[in-house]
Amino acid sequence: MSDTLAQIGEHPLIERLVAGLPSGAQIVLGAGDDAAVLRFSGDVVISTDTMVEDVHFKRAWSTPHDVGRKAAASSIADIEAMGARPVALVVALSVAQSESVDWIQGLRDGIVAECGRAGAQLVGGDISSGPVPVITCTVLGDMGTLRPVTRSGAKPGQVIAYAGRLGMAHAGWMVLRRGFRSPAAVVDAHRVPQPPYGQGAVAALAGATSMIDISDGLVADLGHVAKASSVELRVDTGKLPIHEAQATVGQALGGADPVEFLLVGGDDHALVATFDPAAVPDGWRVIGEVRAGEPGVLVDGEPWSEAGGWDHFTAR
Amino acid sequence: MSDTLAQIGEHPLIERLVAGLPSGAQIVLGAGDDAAVLRFSGDVVISTDTMVEDVHFKRAWSTPHDVGRKAAASSIADIEAMGARPVALVVALSVAQSESVDWIQGLRDGIVAECGRAGAQLVGGDISSGPVPVITCTVLGDMGTLRPVTRSGAKPGQVIAYAGRLGMAHAGWMVLRRGFRSPAAVVDAHRVPQPPYGQGAVAALAGATSMIDISDGLVADLGHVAKASSVELRVDTGKLPIHEAQATVGQALGGADPVEFLLVGGDDHALVATFDPAAVPDGWRVIGEVRAGEPGVLVDGEPWSEAGGWDHFTAR
Repeated sequence: MSDTLAQIGEHPLIERLVAGLPSGAQIVLGAGDDAAVLRFSGDVVISTDTMVEDVHFKRAWSTPHDVGRKAAASSIADIEAMGARPVALVVALSVAQSESVDWIQGLRDGIVAECGRAGAQLVGGDISSGPVPVITCTVLGDMGTLRPVTRSGAKPGQVIAYAGRLGMAHAGWMVLRRGFRSPAAVVDAHRVPQPPYGQGAVAALAGATSMIDISDGLVADLGHVAKASSVELRVDTGKLPIHEAQATVGQALGGADPVEFLLVGGDDHALVATFDPAAVPDGWRVIGEVRAGEPGVLVDGEPWSEAGGWDHFTAR
Repeated sequence: MSDTLAQIGEHPLIERLVAGLPSGAQIVLGAGDDAAVLRFSGDVVISTDTMVEDVHFKRAWSTPHDVGRKAAASSIADIEAMGARPVALVVALSVAQSESVDWIQGLRDGIVAECGRAGAQLVGGDISSGPVPVITCTVLGDMGTLRPVTRSGAKPGQVIAYAGRLGMAHAGWMVLRRGFRSPAAVVDAHRVPQPPYGQGAVAALAGATSMIDISDGLVADLGHVAKASSVELRVDTGKLPIHEAQATVGQALGGADPVEFLLVGGDDHALVATFDPAAVPDGWRVIGEVRAGEPGVLVDGEPWSEAGGWDHFTAR
């Protein structure tokens, strides 16, 4: 059995977690003092995101390493969605005094691994006791010479495109909650998202006029863009690629249309942006267009309410 | 009765909480997009800190406004302790779906009020559901032209000085846990700390060689400085000012020595720093000196273990 937080004590645990953290070019002072110190070349982007056990993950479904990667990825994706380059992450963790040190170490290792994939560094954190694990990752990004891409710049005549994956994590969640552990492609996607790191800055450099990361679902998050930009966003489901594993899940669930997974599924943290038609960069797939009209999202020409996304799906 | 989080829904609640947030000179983009964007003049300082209900505060003892102020203050104090100027704060909150919107709004208003006292701005956040309130504040500070003051620069021949208050919150906690609600000075200090905002940068400008904020207790936190700087730190209790309310609490607790409150009490978030003797700025009180020797803290010439602070006190 692993030691618990109560047995090892807060300060010795922190020393263990801080040991061996990788350094980085922009880190003036890393973890271990009252605060970390970083050097930026451009404007500083900040976002914070919380995951709670049994709300955002289940211990029976995910290793602590998975949970750490997912917590880091969901926060880093928000930085990508502004067009910034992720630089640094701090994590605040509350866990029971009876929590095993191995679980906490696995979580820390997952966060460090995901930061490495995104080009960021873990530079600090906080641990306190609480009834269930609550993990808050706060990420800083560097805009460099680019301007932030908000939700409000979409213009009629432009196209909608995305990078990353849609509806994979959601299809995984649909099978996990029914007690299945396959297909692996979707179950793994639920456990650890794969945001398209680097594509946020690619989109900003290409002149993206609006951008958001898909955390609530494609239609729901496009709804935020439509509202902020005062435009109608039209999605053509014929342009949404269905993964073989999603088709399998659709059949296993009694013939559910797998395109629904792509429309309503969050948690893959794809990036969706609007561009002038000639400006769409490599690695981005066009799935619709921007029109003048009542702010909202049309799917194959039909209106979708803002109450779409997960709510819509679970209400079926 | 106030609406609950479940009744109002996450997005409408966020819109309400974001409404009317003050702007600031360094804010390029405030709350409401995927991330906030800020402009810094110098290096960027970041620290994160969590408060959990019934671990760090009790609903019966503190208003939500108090809790918000305390959560913000404890995070901002870490930024001050590096010598930086607080600029921006993001908050991640998890609360039960049954939590009242009034409680959440009170918390938000307390955070905004405390940010205002410190010269910082609330620029974003996250809300999710969880079993008990967990509040994580992450604060950014701007070093401007100054260099960060770490824990590791204390040198023999220098003096130890502090700004702020010592042991007031702890004395308040001692009476609250026994069911009393007075003296007001110490009970109020437990509810809302009063870090000496601005004094971190004052100390850095004056040439402070090491600095830390007192969150675990004067002796415990000086222990971190002693270890990081490899010096002996000597505190002279004759130089520690006892507040009248602390003396009252000492008597009420059967003759406890009130100087103990100042030695072991955390949560007031005083700043303690080391300076060359001639460099101590106005507003700082000298309480001891730095000597060559075994790294550790001596109180009136007697050794104190690192297991001091709260642990020491509660073990008496």
